Amino acid sequence: MAAKPRPGSPRLTDAARPATFEVEAHNERGEMVPTAIAGEHPLTLYLDKRELVTLMTLGHAPEALAIGYLRNQRLADSIEDIVAVQVDWETDAVAVTTRKAGKNIAKKIGKRTVTSGCGQGTMFGDLMEEIDDVKLRNDLTLGDAELFVLIEKVRKHETIYKQAGAVHGCALATRQGEILMFVEDVGRHNAVDAIAGFMWLDAIDGSDKVFYTTGRLTSEMVIKCAQMRIPFLVSRSGLTKMGHQIAERVGLTMIGRASGRHYLAFTGKHRLKHTAPQPTALA
Amino acid sequence: MAAKPRPGSPRLTDAARPATFEVEAHNERGEMVPTAIAGEHPLTLYLDKRELVTLMTLGHAPEALAIGYLRNQRLADSIEDIVAVQVDWETDAVAVTTRKAGKNIAKKIGKRTVTSGCGQGTMFGDLMEEIDDVKLRNDLTLGDAELFVLIEKVRKHETIYKQAGAVHGCALATRQGEILMFVEDVGRHNAVDAIAGFMWLDAIDGSDKVFYTTGRLTSEMVIKCAQMRIPFLVSRSGLTKMGHQIAERVGLTMIGRASGRHYLAFTGKHRLKHTAPQPTALA
Repeated sequence: MAAKPRPGSPRLTDAARPATFEVEAHNERGEMVPTAIAGEHPLTLYLDKRELVTLMTLGHAPEALAIGYLRNQRLADSIEDIVAVQVDWETDAVAVTTRKAGKNIAKKIGKRTVTSGCGQGTMFGDLMEEIDDVKLRNDLTLGDAELFVLIEKVRKHETIYKQAGAVHGCALATRQGEILMFVEDVGRHNAVDAIAGFMWLDAIDGSDKVFYTTGRLTSEMVIKCAQMRIPFLVSRSGLTKMGHQIAERVGLTMIGRASGRHYLAFTGKHRLKHTAPQPTALA
Repeated sequence: MAAKPRPGSPRLTDAARPATFEVEAHNERGEMVPTAIAGEHPLTLYLDKRELVTLMTLGHAPEALAIGYLRNQRLADSIEDIVAVQVDWETDAVAVTTRKAGKNIAKKIGKRTVTSGCGQGTMFGDLMEEIDDVKLRNDLTLGDAELFVLIEKVRKHETIYKQAGAVHGCALATRQGEILMFVEDVGRHNAVDAIAGFMWLDAIDGSDKVFYTTGRLTSEMVIKCAQMRIPFLVSRSGLTKMGHQIAERVGLTMIGRASGRHYLAFTGKHRLKHTAPQPTALA
């Protein structure tokens, strides 16, 4: 998925790497089986010539990843701040140039701590403070009939995962269940960040959208969804206690174990409507 | 799994948090379903009073996690360096005291970059240099009959994953397929690091062992396995190109897609022996 810049948006390279590579593997019968594996590349992000972070990425949407990383880490305030994003795979580097070169960045970077739990480094304390200011729209609902449409569309989507495994996928969708963008990466958070980057590039407002992830709903996933002002977060996986606590605190509608025509709504169920015909009840 | 310190090993707290918590969820029929979810806690690591990192963790083996993190980040050279590891969940902190307080640490921390791809921060460049010095034992083999024993034991293991999902598991095993330790965490790398910590605490040599992970075989997973001098790395998931490249470079025996009586051997197959009776061939 290549970014389609609008007039006035940053100058971008278009440097996607191939998503999969074929290697030789040997199975339990000793037979050689050509097998597709997912790409993984280090990508060092330079912000106004200052080295910031090395991301391990599939490299399929490196420009959007860099922009979304800066967005979600609050190192850029708007897409207008960003003048250029230039990826160079010769040096495994992405150089981002901003209009505000240097301002505040040193201070912000100085405060960074590294979080794990399958996470990138984030300024965790700052993000939690910010979360308390997030107001998600409460005038919208999601029908479970439309949720089932989305689940089915994700299931049928052509994915790198189906070819090679070892990646997580994220989708931004409408409340009608239409997929607007779908990004996969070897890191769960890279996939979310790339979506955040595409949303800025395409001027897409998250406040009436649904965010789907194949990954687990940990604290960072919930924080990033709330930062993008998206009121609906859906996963086919489970969740953690902190993911649950933060979703409750910010009033997010969080749905886990979404598969087929089943789901579990954990928080914010006031936005979820039963619009699908009832399945035959077991009791 | 609590660490059992030997004489002369560090003073440890024993501050495991409960692994799961029950919350109320509502299913597609509107029924309330009590659901177990995995714990997730921030744990800020202080090394000789210097704040180093905040890990998001299940909190089930925090002392071993802290030790293994320092081991795998090369911030401690041996278990003898570590005097005390004290976890305090009131402040979400673990304080590690070393004999060499301060030496080299500032320099090492200064060089750190943050990698992602579901990774914690690592000093990536340094680790890659170190990897070239790793010599894995080549006088050992693993029979696939024993591999199938291990796969079956992992399948039957009582896990937090079965209760609550949202965690990754790692096991250290013998080449006979016996599980020596099994650790789960919300972060893949935390689980590996906790195993590395337990190995130091229990003085277990990795050079003739098998490392099993439920997670993907990315670059960081392969690097950590090689750092622990473990020649066999097994996963039920897939792998990435960089994981493959590093495994090849260091001569690791890497097995993916291990499930039931099936597997794919990707690298180092000279150490893998066909000892299991051949399944009925399809061709």
